[in-house]
Amino acid sequence: MNLNIALLPGDGVGPEVLAQAVKCLQAVEETFNHEFVFKEALVGAAAIDKKGKPLPQSTLKLCQDADAVLFGAIGDPKYDNDPEAKIRPEQGLLELRKSLGLFANIRPVLSHPSLLHKSPLKKEIISGTDFVIYRELTGGIYFGEKKLNKEGTVASDLCEYSETEISRIAHLAFKAAKGRKKKVTLVDKANVLESSRLWRKVVTRIGESYPEVTLDFLFVDNAAMQLVLNPTQFDVILTENMFGDILSDEGSVIGGSIGLLASASIGDENALFEPIHGSYPQAKGKNVANPIASILSAAMLLEHFGLMEEAMAIKLAVDKSLRKGIVTPDIKSKSQFGTQQVGDYIAHSI
Amino acid sequence: MNLNIALLPGDGVGPEVLAQAVKCLQAVEETFNHEFVFKEALVGAAAIDKKGKPLPQSTLKLCQDADAVLFGAIGDPKYDNDPEAKIRPEQGLLELRKSLGLFANIRPVLSHPSLLHKSPLKKEIISGTDFVIYRELTGGIYFGEKKLNKEGTVASDLCEYSETEISRIAHLAFKAAKGRKKKVTLVDKANVLESSRLWRKVVTRIGESYPEVTLDFLFVDNAAMQLVLNPTQFDVILTENMFGDILSDEGSVIGGSIGLLASASIGDENALFEPIHGSYPQAKGKNVANPIASILSAAMLLEHFGLMEEAMAIKLAVDKSLRKGIVTPDIKSKSQFGTQQVGDYIAHSI
Ligand SMILES: CC(C)[C@H](C(=O)O)[C@@H](O)C(=O)O
Ligand SMILES: CC(C)[C@H](C(=O)O)[C@@H](O)C(=O)O
Repeated sequence: MNLNIALLPGDGVGPEVLAQAVKCLQAVEETFNHEFVFKEALVGAAAIDKKGKPLPQSTLKLCQDADAVLFGAIGDPKYDNDPEAKIRPEQGLLELRKSLGLFANIRPVLSHPSLLHKSPLKKEIISGTDFVIYRELTGGIYFGEKKLNKEGTVASDLCEYSETEISRIAHLAFKAAKGRKKKVTLVDKANVLESSRLWRKVVTRIGESYPEVTLDFLFVDNAAMQLVLNPTQFDVILTENMFGDILSDEGSVIGGSIGLLASASIGDENALFEPIHGSYPQAKGKNVANPIASILSAAMLLEHFGLMEEAMAIKLAVDKSLRKGIVTPDIKSKSQFGTQQVGDYIAHSI
Repeated sequence: MNLNIALLPGDGVGPEVLAQAVKCLQAVEETFNHEFVFKEALVGAAAIDKKGKPLPQSTLKLCQDADAVLFGAIGDPKYDNDPEAKIRPEQGLLELRKSLGLFANIRPVLSHPSLLHKSPLKKEIISGTDFVIYRELTGGIYFGEKKLNKEGTVASDLCEYSETEISRIAHLAFKAAKGRKKKVTLVDKANVLESSRLWRKVVTRIGESYPEVTLDFLFVDNAAMQLVLNPTQFDVILTENMFGDILSDEGSVIGGSIGLLASASIGDENALFEPIHGSYPQAKGKNVANPIASILSAAMLLEHFGLMEEAMAIKLAVDKSLRKGIVTPDIKSKSQFGTQQVGDYIAHSI
């Protein structure tokens, strides 16, 4: 298969971990006889520094023309604590999601047997956890109208959803559930929010065309509890943008290491794959960041194009590195292996 | 001291647990020679059933005239899954908060040594947890304008905050921190939301007048992770309404039993005290619900009026019941003690 892959390393440890994912894709390319063409572009703080904005036109164009985007990480603390900052790296990511129409963010959460002990949760609570979060990614309060009055004393954000926005991701979630444990849990705040009541209405109706899938509902506050109390109850969690942001990060600690979790953001015409961890600026350039999340996001990319065997080769190689302890210090303190060594090991095992 | 206390038992297990809190207040009344006058009124589903609305005028009036409100629980599943329902029990609670001006919801989270083993989190993670959440309660997306278009295909909720709304609760949070570990963590989503940027600006400015208190910031997604990864890092968490709803429920599982957690909702002229658990309809009338959260909310009521010794008497009695194992089945499975027996024991120990 020929694939044009746009590489957006971004900020912090993004470039380092992305480089390992590319190594693995190149190993797959050779082993399985594909042709992957990689083109790199700037995004985030890196793009602000060099081009004055977080998503330069040329970067967007590259992504639009590519078959898929492989993303590193975004964000730089120098922009975070300045509420007055007019330009922020995160805008680049949000604009990219919106412009590419990436309406569904998909985050699998699995408890890896060899990492159970790393979790803050008890083994008996998390053992067997295997769910996936479908988070709506281009609507809701992230993209609704923002206002600040002239005096700077009143600010607002609008959370808006349309039936169309809800139904397209709901269909994806139900389809995913069909191939899994056949349960969708809609997380909302329908006892308070009008938009949540629309979610409940639309999702309930769509659920009727998937009779083999059970649909249940949780208020977001309760969901935040249940994720910690009993994560194995979940199969597919479907939710809106802001709730999904919170719950997927909460969910990410279950498995014992956020450094292992990948995500896919997909739309009708494009798809982007990235680790769920942030730019982790303190670790930048130190060769300590865990490359596995980025490598697994490359595996999700392959799956997206139906290259199941290839994706499996990556996953097995990751598994091997975990079993053999060829891991970064976040997984095994005092490990002498760094980002590059782990990346090399996994790429060679493919 | 003379206190007029409005009792709002509400729904589900609300009436049962509230009755135990009243017993304890009566024990305090006798022992310490106070005069407490209790008057009861309907709220929630109970009020809808009898009066057609969740917050009847007479109930509101009773609360306005009282010195404080002691609240049971609210909510009935028969209203939850009906997105079309025009009247919902929760509206009663929201209206009450708004009408009484209860802008600050205060939820202490403590890990009780005798309950460490009940937590889904590992002992070494939670041991020593002692923080309090200050959640803004009468603003934000809960009370912003709600819209549904005529066709019922687009719905929205407005999240709006003013400087005044932010600053009054921020002052309370900083004052609380002064008497504690001297740290305030503002949780927001300032990398995305305009309203969060206003929070950051206002809170930063107010922080300058509390030089002995450290102020730091966390994005809400990160906060949802940190609560589980390292809850002992927190002292006072300050946040807006919706984030506070989610994080305080998440936080409630840390200590091992949500059945122990109380909250205070306070304003300039009124104050309401309630357990943080819900109405738990499956347990209604079965004499199994844990009354401790309700009893501890009575202790918070006493503290609010400066009756520290009295509050301490309740807390010590609760402690004794936990140590002696006079607890409901949620704490010790197969316990033969019910809601009433635990309530009696605690009241008698005062
Ligand atoms: C960086 C930030 C804008 C982003 C979000 O909130 O969506 C991140 O937290 C994520 O979840 O991908
Ligand atoms: C019942 C509901 C409206 C309420 C809220 O969301 O505020 C509850 O979850 C709470 O936290 O007190």
